[in-house]
Amino acid sequence: MKNDIYLGLVHHPITNKMGEVVTTSVTNLDIHDISRSCRTFGIRNYFLVTPLKPQHDLVNKILGHWEEDKAAAYNPDRQDALSVARLVDSVEMGIERIKEIHGVEPLVTVTGANFKTCTGREKDLLSKASVDKRPIFLLFGTGWGLHARVLERAEFALEPIFGASEDGYNHLSVRSAVAIYLDRLARASETMK
Amino acid sequence: MKNDIYLGLVHHPITNKMGEVVTTSVTNLDIHDISRSCRTFGIRNYFLVTPLKPQHDLVNKILGHWEEDKAAAYNPDRQDALSVARLVDSVEMGIERIKEIHGVEPLVTVTGANFKTCTGREKDLLSKASVDKRPIFLLFGTGWGLHARVLERAEFALEPIFGASEDGYNHLSVRSAVAIYLDRLARASETMK
Repeated sequence: MKNDIYLGLVHHPITNKMGEVVTTSVTNLDIHDISRSCRTFGIRNYFLVTPLKPQHDLVNKILGHWEEDKAAAYNPDRQDALSVARLVDSVEMGIERIKEIHGVEPLVTVTGANFKTCTGREKDLLSKASVDKRPIFLLFGTGWGLHARVLERAEFALEPIFGASEDGYNHLSVRSAVAIYLDRLARASETMK
Repeated sequence: MKNDIYLGLVHHPITNKMGEVVTTSVTNLDIHDISRSCRTFGIRNYFLVTPLKPQHDLVNKILGHWEEDKAAAYNPDRQDALSVARLVDSVEMGIERIKEIHGVEPLVTVTGANFKTCTGREKDLLSKASVDKRPIFLLFGTGWGLHARVLERAEFALEPIFGASEDGYNHLSVRSAVAIYLDRLARASETMK
Protein backbone atom coordinates (compact mmCIF):
# COMPACT_ATOMS: atom_id res chain seq x y z
CA MET A 1 0.00 0.00 0.00
CA LYS A 2 1.07 3.57 -0.65
CA ASN A 3 0.69 4.61 3.00
CA ASP A 4 3.05 3.28 5.67
CA ILE A 5 0.79 1.23 7.90
CA TYR A 6 1.79 -0.48 11.16
CA LEU A 7 -0.52 -2.82 13.03
CA GLY A 8 -0.71 -3.39 16.78
CA LEU A 9 -2.48 -6.27 18.53
CA VAL A 10 -3.01 -5.04 22.07
CA HIS A 11 -3.01 -7.46 25.05
CA HIS A 12 -2.87 -4.65 27.64
CA PRO A 13 -4.72 -2.47 28.57
CA ILE A 14 -7.77 -4.51 27.60
CA THR A 15 -11.33 -4.50 28.94
CA ASN A 16 -12.91 -7.75 30.10
CA LYS A 17 -16.61 -8.58 30.11
CA MET A 18 -17.05 -6.81 33.46
CA GLY A 19 -15.35 -3.63 32.21
CA GLU A 20 -12.19 -4.19 34.25
CA VAL A 21 -8.64 -3.65 32.94
CA VAL A 22 -6.93 -6.94 32.16
CA THR A 23 -3.95 -8.36 30.29
CA THR A 24 -4.87 -11.10 27.82
CA SER A 25 -2.58 -13.90 26.67
CA VAL A 26 -0.80 -13.86 23.35
CA THR A 27 -1.96 -16.80 21.23
CA ASN A 28 0.06 -18.76 18.73
CA LEU A 29 -2.67 -18.37 16.18
CA ASP A 30 -2.92 -14.59 16.45
CA ILE A 31 0.81 -14.45 15.74
CA HIS A 32 0.63 -16.66 12.66
CA ASP A 33 -2.67 -15.64 11.06
CA ILE A 34 -2.23 -11.91 11.54
CA SER A 35 1.42 -12.03 10.37
CA ARG A 36 0.26 -13.66 7.15
CA SER A 37 -2.45 -11.03 6.65
CA CYS A 38 0.05 -8.23 7.37
CA ARG A 39 2.60 -9.61 4.88
CA THR A 40 -0.09 -10.14 2.23
CA PHE A 41 -1.34 -6.55 2.49
CA GLY A 42 2.06 -4.85 2.77
CA ILE A 43 1.86 -3.79 6.44
CA ARG A 44 5.30 -2.49 7.59
CA ASN A 45 5.37 -4.16 11.00
CA TYR A 46 2.99 -6.09 13.20
CA PHE A 47 3.50 -5.18 16.87
CA LEU A 48 2.44 -7.69 19.51
CA VAL A 49 1.78 -5.51 22.56
CA THR A 50 2.19 -7.11 25.99
CA PRO A 51 4.03 -6.04 29.16
CA LEU A 52 4.35 -9.63 30.45
CA LYS A 53 7.92 -10.91 30.28
CA PRO A 54 7.02 -14.64 30.23
CA GLN A 55 4.84 -13.85 27.21
CA HIS A 56 7.84 -12.20 25.53
CA ASP A 57 9.84 -15.40 25.96
CA LEU A 58 6.98 -17.41 24.47
CA VAL A 59 6.53 -15.07 21.50
CA ASN A 60 10.28 -14.94 20.82
CA LYS A 61 10.32 -18.72 20.79
CA ILE A 62 7.47 -18.81 18.27
CA LEU A 63 9.04 -16.12 16.08
CA GLY A 64 12.29 -18.09 15.94
CA HIS A 65 10.71 -21.48 16.18
CA TRP A 66 10.11 -22.20 12.54
CA GLU A 67 13.77 -21.77 11.63
CA GLU A 68 14.65 -25.10 13.23
CA ASP A 69 11.41 -26.80 12.41
CA LYS A 70 10.88 -29.37 9.67
CA ALA A 71 7.61 -27.61 8.94
CA ALA A 72 9.56 -24.51 7.92
CA ALA A 73 11.12 -26.38 5.00
CA TYR A 74 7.70 -27.61 3.88
CA ASN A 75 6.07 -24.25 4.44
CA PRO A 76 8.63 -21.42 4.04
CA ASP A 77 5.88 -18.84 3.43
CA ARG A 78 4.79 -19.13 7.05
CA GLN A 79 8.26 -18.42 8.35
CA ASP A 80 8.56 -15.51 5.93
CA ALA A 81 5.33 -14.04 7.31
CA LEU A 82 6.74 -13.90 10.84
CA SER A 83 9.53 -11.54 9.69
CA VAL A 84 6.99 -8.71 9.94
CA ALA A 85 6.23 -9.33 13.65
CA ARG A 86 7.73 -7.31 16.53
CA LEU A 87 7.30 -7.46 20.28
CA VAL A 88 6.72 -4.31 22.40
CA ASP A 89 5.81 -3.70 26.05
CA SER A 90 3.17 -1.07 25.40
CA VAL A 91 1.29 0.94 22.81
CA GLU A 92 3.61 3.88 23.67
CA MET A 93 6.66 1.77 22.87
CA GLY A 94 5.14 0.89 19.50
CA ILE A 95 4.57 4.58 18.82
CA GLU A 96 8.21 5.30 19.75
CA ARG A 97 9.50 2.62 17.37
CA ILE A 98 7.50 4.07 14.50
CA LYS A 99 8.72 7.59 15.37
CA GLU A 100 12.31 6.34 15.21
CA ILE A 101 11.72 5.02 11.68
CA HIS A 102 9.71 7.93 10.24
CA GLY A 103 10.76 10.87 12.41
CA VAL A 104 7.14 11.74 13.06
CA GLU A 105 4.42 10.49 15.42
CA PRO A 106 2.10 7.96 13.76
CA LEU A 107 -1.61 8.58 13.39
CA VAL A 108 -2.87 6.29 16.17
CA THR A 109 -6.04 4.65 14.88
CA VAL A 110 -8.37 2.38 16.82
CA THR A 111 -10.84 -0.30 15.75
CA GLY A 112 -13.75 -1.82 17.65
CA ALA A 113 -17.09 -3.52 17.06
CA ASN A 114 -19.11 -1.31 19.41
CA PHE A 115 -18.05 2.29 18.71
CA LYS A 116 -20.98 4.66 19.13
CA THR A 117 -19.22 7.30 17.03
CA CYS A 118 -16.26 7.07 14.67
CA THR A 119 -13.95 9.40 12.77
CA GLY A 120 -14.41 7.91 9.33
CA ARG A 121 -13.85 5.07 6.90
CA GLU A 122 -10.71 3.63 5.33
CA LYS A 123 -10.40 6.22 2.56
CA ASP A 124 -10.74 9.05 5.10
CA LEU A 125 -7.94 7.57 7.19
CA LEU A 126 -5.61 7.12 4.21
CA SER A 127 -6.34 10.66 2.99
CA LYS A 128 -5.64 12.21 6.38
CA ALA A 129 -2.37 10.27 6.79
CA SER A 130 -1.27 11.23 3.25
CA VAL A 131 -2.03 14.92 3.76
CA ASP A 132 -0.28 14.91 7.16
CA LYS A 133 2.63 12.84 5.75
CA ARG A 134 2.42 10.46 8.71
CA PRO A 135 2.44 6.69 9.07
CA ILE A 136 -0.63 4.94 10.50
CA PHE A 137 -0.60 2.81 13.68
CA LEU A 138 -3.74 0.67 13.47
CA LEU A 139 -4.70 -0.88 16.83
CA PHE A 140 -6.81 -3.95 17.48
CA GLY A 141 -7.98 -5.12 20.89
CA THR A 142 -8.24 -8.65 22.26
CA GLY A 143 -10.63 -9.83 25.00
CA TRP A 144 -13.64 -7.49 25.15
CA GLY A 145 -11.76 -4.70 23.36
CA LEU A 146 -9.30 -1.84 23.76
CA HIS A 147 -9.44 -0.04 27.12
CA ALA A 148 -10.70 3.58 27.24
CA ARG A 149 -7.11 4.68 27.96
CA VAL A 150 -6.09 3.55 24.45
CA LEU A 151 -9.25 4.86 22.79
CA GLU A 152 -8.63 8.30 24.31
CA ARG A 153 -5.03 8.30 23.07
CA ALA A 154 -6.17 7.73 19.47
CA GLU A 155 -6.65 10.41 16.83
CA PHE A 156 -8.81 8.30 14.53
CA ALA A 157 -11.54 5.70 15.16
CA LEU A 158 -12.38 3.54 12.14
CA GLU A 159 -15.99 2.75 11.31
CA PRO A 160 -16.91 -0.67 12.78
CA ILE A 161 -17.58 -3.75 10.64
CA PHE A 162 -21.36 -4.10 10.92
CA GLY A 163 -21.87 -7.56 9.43
CA ALA A 164 -25.04 -8.64 7.65
CA SER A 165 -26.90 -11.05 9.93
CA GLU A 166 -30.65 -10.79 10.29
CA ASP A 167 -30.54 -10.86 14.09
CA GLY A 168 -27.64 -8.43 14.56
CA TYR A 169 -25.11 -11.09 15.62
CA ASN A 170 -21.69 -9.45 15.21
CA HIS A 171 -18.81 -11.30 16.84
CA LEU A 172 -15.89 -11.69 14.48
CA SER A 173 -12.59 -13.03 15.77
CA VAL A 174 -9.84 -10.40 15.89
CA ARG A 175 -8.08 -12.39 13.15
CA SER A 176 -11.10 -12.02 10.86
CA ALA A 177 -11.52 -8.33 11.71
CA VAL A 178 -7.85 -7.66 10.88
CA ALA A 179 -8.20 -9.42 7.52
CA ILE A 180 -11.31 -7.43 6.61
CA TYR A 181 -9.85 -4.04 7.59
CA LEU A 182 -6.62 -4.70 5.66
CA ASP A 183 -8.58 -5.71 2.57
CA ARG A 184 -10.75 -2.59 2.88
CA LEU A 185 -7.64 -0.40 3.28
CA ALA A 186 -5.97 -2.00 0.26
CA ARG A 187 -9.05 -1.49 -1.88
CA ALA A 188 -9.46 2.12 -0.69
CA SER A 189 -5.77 2.68 -1.43
CA GLU A 190 -6.22 1.35 -5.00
CA THR A 191 -9.06 3.73 -5.77
CA MET A 192 -6.97 6.69 -4.54
CA LYS A 193 -4.06 6.14 -6.94
CA MET B 1 -27.62 -10.79 2.99
CA LYS B 2 -30.41 -10.88 0.43
CA ASN B 3 -29.02 -13.96 -1.37
CA ASP B 4 -29.08 -17.38 0.33
CA ILE B 5 -25.41 -18.21 0.75
CA TYR B 6 -23.98 -21.47 2.09
CA LEU B 7 -20.28 -21.94 2.79
CA GLY B 8 -18.26 -25.13 2.52
CA LEU B 9 -14.79 -25.72 3.98
CA VAL B 10 -13.43 -28.65 2.00
CA HIS B 11 -11.00 -31.16 3.56
CA HIS B 12 -11.31 -33.63 0.66
CA PRO B 13 -10.50 -33.69 -2.23
CA ILE B 14 -7.60 -31.31 -1.56
CA THR B 15 -4.30 -30.82 -3.37
CA ASN B 16 -1.05 -30.98 -1.40
CA LYS B 17 2.20 -29.18 -2.28
CA MET B 18 3.16 -32.00 -4.65
CA GLY B 19 -0.19 -31.84 -6.49
CA GLU B 20 -1.48 -35.10 -5.01
CA VAL B 21 -5.03 -35.65 -3.71
CA VAL B 22 -5.14 -35.62 0.07
CA THR B 23 -7.57 -35.30 2.97
CA THR B 24 -6.65 -32.58 5.45
CA SER B 25 -7.60 -32.51 9.13
CA VAL B 26 -10.43 -30.42 10.48
CA THR B 27 -9.07 -27.88 12.97
CA ASN B 28 -10.80 -26.55 16.05
CA LEU B 29 -9.96 -23.02 14.99
CA ASP B 30 -11.44 -23.32 11.51
CA ILE B 31 -14.67 -24.45 13.12
CA HIS B 32 -14.84 -21.54 15.57
CA ASP B 33 -13.48 -18.63 13.54
CA ILE B 34 -15.36 -19.44 10.36
CA SER B 35 -18.62 -20.12 12.26
CA ARG B 36 -18.35 -16.65 13.80
CA SER B 37 -17.71 -15.05 10.40
CA CYS B 38 -20.63 -16.97 8.88
CA ARG B 39 -23.02 -15.92 11.66
CA THR B 40 -21.86 -12.30 11.46
CA PHE B 41 -22.47 -12.10 7.71
CA GLY B 42 -25.75 -14.02 7.63
CA ILE B 43 -24.52 -17.19 5.92
CA ARG B 44 -27.28 -19.86 6.04
CA ASN B 45 -25.08 -22.86 6.91
CA TYR B 46 -21.38 -23.59 7.18
CA PHE B 47 -20.63 -27.10 5.90
CA LEU B 48 -17.48 -28.84 7.16
CA VAL B 49 -16.68 -31.30 4.39
CA THR B 50 -14.75 -34.45 5.34
CA PRO B 51 -15.30 -38.15 4.58
CA LEU B 52 -13.31 -39.30 7.65
CA LYS B 53 -15.54 -40.78 10.37
CA PRO B 54 -13.10 -40.14 13.27
CA GLN B 55 -13.10 -36.47 12.20
CA HIS B 56 -16.90 -36.48 12.35
CA ASP B 57 -16.75 -37.66 15.95
CA LEU B 58 -14.26 -34.91 16.77
CA VAL B 59 -16.30 -32.20 15.07
CA ASN B 60 -19.54 -33.37 16.70
CA LYS B 61 -17.79 -33.18 20.06
CA ILE B 62 -16.67 -29.62 19.38
CA LEU B 63 -20.08 -28.56 18.10
CA GLY B 64 -21.75 -29.90 21.24
CA HIS B 65 -18.87 -29.20 23.57
CA TRP B 66 -19.69 -25.64 24.59
CA GLU B 67 -23.12 -26.59 25.89
CA GLU B 68 -21.61 -28.28 28.94
CA ASP B 69 -18.65 -25.97 29.24
CA LYS B 70 -18.25 -23.21 31.80
CA ALA B 71 -16.81 -21.10 29.00
CA ALA B 72 -20.20 -21.19 27.27
CA ALA B 73 -21.77 -19.25 30.12
CA TYR B 74 -19.02 -16.64 29.95
CA ASN B 75 -19.07 -16.51 26.18
CA PRO B 76 -22.53 -17.50 24.85
CA ASP B 77 -21.86 -15.78 21.50
CA ARG B 78 -19.32 -18.44 20.60
CA GLN B 79 -21.77 -21.24 21.24
CA ASP B 80 -24.40 -19.37 19.26
CA ALA B 81 -22.00 -19.14 16.30
CA LEU B 82 -21.63 -22.93 16.13
CA SER B 83 -25.38 -23.32 15.47
CA VAL B 84 -24.66 -22.48 11.84
CA ALA B 85 -22.16 -25.37 11.35
CA ARG B 86 -23.02 -28.69 9.69
CA LEU B 87 -21.00 -31.80 8.92
CA VAL B 88 -21.11 -33.53 5.51
CA ASP B 89 -19.13 -36.35 3.88
CA SER B 90 -18.61 -34.65 0.54
CA VAL B 91 -19.23 -31.57 -1.57
CA GLU B 92 -22.00 -33.55 -3.32
CA MET B 93 -23.71 -34.18 0.02
CA GLY B 94 -23.59 -30.45 0.76
CA ILE B 95 -25.18 -29.75 -2.62
CA GLU B 96 -27.92 -32.30 -1.86
CA ARG B 97 -28.68 -30.70 1.51
CA ILE B 98 -29.06 -27.28 -0.09
CA LYS B 99 -31.28 -28.76 -2.83
CA GLU B 100 -33.51 -30.28 -0.16
CA ILE B 101 -33.98 -26.83 1.42
CA HIS B 102 -34.42 -24.73 -1.73
CA GLY B 103 -35.68 -27.25 -4.29
CA VAL B 104 -33.00 -26.17 -6.75
CA GLU B 105 -29.31 -26.93 -7.25
CA PRO B 106 -27.04 -24.28 -5.70
CA LEU B 107 -24.64 -22.23 -7.80
CA VAL B 108 -21.40 -24.00 -6.84
CA THR B 109 -18.75 -21.30 -6.51
CA VAL B 110 -15.04 -21.81 -5.88
CA THR B 111 -12.35 -19.60 -4.39
CA GLY B 112 -8.57 -19.84 -4.66
CA ALA B 113 -5.45 -17.69 -4.49
CA ASN B 114 -3.93 -18.92 -7.76
CA PHE B 115 -6.72 -18.95 -10.33
CA LYS B 116 -5.41 -18.04 -13.79
CA THR B 117 -8.90 -17.12 -14.94
CA CYS B 118 -12.10 -16.42 -13.03
CA THR B 119 -15.79 -15.93 -13.75
CA GLY B 120 -16.21 -12.60 -11.98
CA ARG B 121 -16.38 -10.61 -8.77
CA GLU B 122 -18.80 -10.65 -5.86
CA LYS B 123 -21.47 -8.45 -7.48
CA ASP B 124 -21.42 -10.65 -10.60
CA LEU B 125 -21.98 -13.74 -8.47
CA LEU B 126 -24.85 -12.19 -6.51
CA SER B 127 -26.48 -10.91 -9.72
CA LYS B 128 -26.27 -14.29 -11.43
CA ALA B 129 -27.70 -16.10 -8.38
CA SER B 130 -30.52 -13.55 -8.08
CA VAL B 131 -31.45 -13.80 -11.76
CA ASP B 132 -31.33 -17.61 -11.65
CA LYS B 133 -33.21 -17.64 -8.29
CA ARG B 134 -30.66 -20.08 -6.85
CA PRO B 135 -28.74 -20.24 -3.56
CA ILE B 136 -24.94 -19.99 -3.62
CA PHE B 137 -22.59 -22.71 -2.31
CA LEU B 138 -19.26 -20.97 -1.75
CA LEU B 139 -16.35 -23.41 -1.43
CA PHE B 140 -12.98 -22.86 0.25
CA GLY B 141 -10.04 -25.24 0.14
CA THR B 142 -7.62 -26.20 2.89
CA GLY B 143 -4.04 -27.43 2.38
CA TRP B 144 -2.76 -26.27 -1.02
CA GLY B 145 -6.28 -25.69 -2.32
CA LEU B 146 -9.34 -27.31 -3.86
CA HIS B 147 -8.63 -30.28 -6.14
CA ALA B 148 -9.31 -29.97 -9.89
CA ARG B 149 -12.26 -32.33 -9.45
CA VAL B 150 -14.03 -29.67 -7.35
CA LEU B 151 -12.95 -26.78 -9.56
CA GLU B 152 -14.40 -28.55 -12.62
CA ARG B 153 -17.69 -29.15 -10.81
CA ALA B 154 -18.10 -25.41 -10.15
CA GLU B 155 -20.14 -22.98 -12.22
CA PHE B 156 -18.48 -19.84 -10.88
CA ALA B 157 -14.88 -19.01 -9.86
CA LEU B 158 -14.53 -15.85 -7.76
CA GLU B 159 -11.74 -13.39 -8.48
CA PRO B 160 -8.79 -14.12 -6.14
CA ILE B 161 -7.74 -11.79 -3.31
CA PHE B 162 -4.55 -10.24 -4.68
CA GLY B 163 -3.19 -8.53 -1.57
CA ALA B 164 -0.99 -5.45 -1.67
CA SER B 165 2.55 -6.49 -0.76
CA GLU B 166 5.47 -5.03 -2.68
CA ASP B 167 7.07 -8.44 -3.28
CA GLY B 168 3.90 -10.30 -4.25
CA TYR B 169 3.64 -12.32 -1.01
CA ASN B 170 0.07 -13.65 -0.91
CA HIS B 171 -0.57 -16.35 1.67
CA LEU B 172 -3.67 -15.63 3.71
CA SER B 173 -5.03 -18.25 6.07
CA VAL B 174 -8.32 -19.75 4.91
CA ARG B 175 -9.93 -18.09 7.96
CA SER B 176 -8.77 -14.66 6.75
CA ALA B 177 -9.81 -15.37 3.15
CA VAL B 178 -13.30 -16.39 4.30
CA ALA B 179 -13.66 -13.19 6.34
CA ILE B 180 -12.59 -11.01 3.40
CA TYR B 181 -14.88 -12.70 0.85
CA LEU B 182 -17.90 -12.50 3.20
CA ASP B 183 -17.25 -8.80 3.82
CA ARG B 184 -16.91 -8.20 0.06
CA LEU B 185 -20.16 -10.10 -0.59
CA ALA B 186 -22.00 -8.15 2.12
CA ARG B 187 -20.79 -4.83 0.72
CA ALA B 188 -21.66 -5.85 -2.84
CA SER B 189 -25.09 -6.95 -1.60
CA GLU B 190 -25.64 -3.55 0.06
CA THR B 191 -24.91 -1.61 -3.13
CA MET B 192 -27.38 -3.79 -5.07
CA LYS B 193 -30.38 -2.99 -2.86
